Amino acid sequence: MKKTILTGIKPTGQIHLGNYIGAIKPALDLAKVPHYQPAYFVADFHGLTKIHQADEFKQLSYGIAATWLALGLNPEKVIFYKQSDVAEIFELNWILSCFTPKGLMNRAHAYKGIVEQNREMDRDLDDGVNMGIYTYPILMAADILSFQTNIVPVGKDQIQHVEIARDIAETFNHHYGETFVLPDYQVQEGTELLPGLDGRKMSKSYNNTIPLFEEPKRLQKLINKIKTDSLPPAAPKNPDTSIVFALYKEFATEAQIEKMAECYRSGIGWGEAKKELFDVMNHFLEEPRETYKELMGSPKRIDEILENGAERARAIAKPFLKEIKRKIGVHM
Amino acid sequence: MKKTILTGIKPTGQIHLGNYIGAIKPALDLAKVPHYQPAYFVADFHGLTKIHQADEFKQLSYGIAATWLALGLNPEKVIFYKQSDVAEIFELNWILSCFTPKGLMNRAHAYKGIVEQNREMDRDLDDGVNMGIYTYPILMAADILSFQTNIVPVGKDQIQHVEIARDIAETFNHHYGETFVLPDYQVQEGTELLPGLDGRKMSKSYNNTIPLFEEPKRLQKLINKIKTDSLPPAAPKNPDTSIVFALYKEFATEAQIEKMAECYRSGIGWGEAKKELFDVMNHFLEEPRETYKELMGSPKRIDEILENGAERARAIAKPFLKEIKRKIGVHM
Repeated sequence: MKKTILTGIKPTGQIHLGNYIGAIKPALDLAKVPHYQPAYFVADFHGLTKIHQADEFKQLSYGIAATWLALGLNPEKVIFYKQSDVAEIFELNWILSCFTPKGLMNRAHAYKGIVEQNREMDRDLDDGVNMGIYTYPILMAADILSFQTNIVPVGKDQIQHVEIARDIAETFNHHYGETFVLPDYQVQEGTELLPGLDGRKMSKSYNNTIPLFEEPKRLQKLINKIKTDSLPPAAPKNPDTSIVFALYKEFATEAQIEKMAECYRSGIGWGEAKKELFDVMNHFLEEPRETYKELMGSPKRIDEILENGAERARAIAKPFLKEIKRKIGVHM
Repeated sequence: MKKTILTGIKPTGQIHLGNYIGAIKPALDLAKVPHYQPAYFVADFHGLTKIHQADEFKQLSYGIAATWLALGLNPEKVIFYKQSDVAEIFELNWILSCFTPKGLMNRAHAYKGIVEQNREMDRDLDDGVNMGIYTYPILMAADILSFQTNIVPVGKDQIQHVEIARDIAETFNHHYGETFVLPDYQVQEGTELLPGLDGRKMSKSYNNTIPLFEEPKRLQKLINKIKTDSLPPAAPKNPDTSIVFALYKEFATEAQIEKMAECYRSGIGWGEAKKELFDVMNHFLEEPRETYKELMGSPKRIDEILENGAERARAIAKPFLKEIKRKIGVHM
């Protein structure tokens, strides 16, 4: 019996290196495990909580799909779909709402974070919170539970969402008998720490990201902006505390990494270290970047792939929703 | 151009006289207006906020459908459907969530009422509130807006829900241009005051209702329980303060009402007044009661009618949802 492994990315910003290292790369590795059935999706309707501009929304959504494909996602193995193409998820979303105590949402980290900020700024506690933001852990539960997902790969900040999905599933199962598989999370160890240009976690909200498919010249420029210390070129450097080295490690081979660490310890100028970083990065990204550009230029191909994926996704979600509706007594 | 008029009843309890007089009867009258296109539905997924027992849920849902039909709803004119058969409503529900400030939900009367009760009982303020209860004004907005509804007939306690739907529609229109028709409410004047057995508003929560299709013997017994004063039979009585008379008025002809008022003023025993009430009520209910029983005995007929209705409903909701999705940039 294959295990379903599910992950989604929402179109709220340009995909950057942090997304790649933290989410996409490990997910692509997991997709190769023979007894896993991966279901990866463009979480477009999650993005609607934030993006209310149609063209931007569309571009970002296509961008995510093209990124996955450019990086090697195989749509023959992966069920690869757009969330908004699977209507069943939104019916389940409502059903699950009726089994979700409001207190559970009040305790969601993301919501609590906004409330805290509002408190500090002396604003209304719910200022700027739309109901999509407040209820999105339920939609996430519907994403997960619709496909009887066994494993959800997550960053540490996402663990709670899988726990919420489990809680809701357990409540439902308690009322109507075993229905939902209880999902487990699988934390991507270490990957959540990819540093951005300033050394803090690479994140859109810190404005310190390197977009994944940046043109070589722009990529070089961004790399040159990475924060370093002011040691002279000849001085020995500690690779373990260098942002440049941390990024280098993600793209170089084992042999290259070892050699470069040696160079750091015996002294390398930051200009040269950054040049080396650019080289390995660009070497890795060159081909995917081309594929990405090609795909973005032929949205119909992306549509086709996603439509095929949606059909496969609905072939699972539709009969399952029917079963759920029978259990609650909605199907007459 | 026809005006769409929409109303739904949720399956959370047995239909009683108050539901009939306050909602069903006026809706059936409005359904006869030539330039109105009525869309009436079984709000089953709204009922799921409260009923978590499958058999009960199913029976109550069938009961609502059979009640409408037994009382003369014409499914040729009325688009008569079950909410859960129109998947588009639940996609729109999510979309609207993203344009609903959380503050709007915090101010919803029904939710505030529960919070107030919890406060008085010194419980957690959200005690007993599931997310279906908290967010149901959004689902109601989706019900209304999916069909470009012009008019929503409501009791006074429901006015706010139509206002919320308007608010959300306006926010969306503001972002993406004219999309949703702004619905108006139409208050059923006077009808919200139908007294129950004890003289308070007839309501399930007061446990003072007369179920609509009660068997004659039980109906007689319930009528005998109606609260009266202790004036002797021969004493003149004020029809305007009598619960028995208030109910009588709803079922008798103008001529009968006038004659009965005269009897009250010249003196009538409560036993006799109640017998007269039973007679007009039973006369009116006899035929619908039989039809209701027949329908409840052949659920397949109900299914058929509702499926036809759902097809007509989806013929409106589906292309409209597609248009909405295009506007927000979800359709690639």
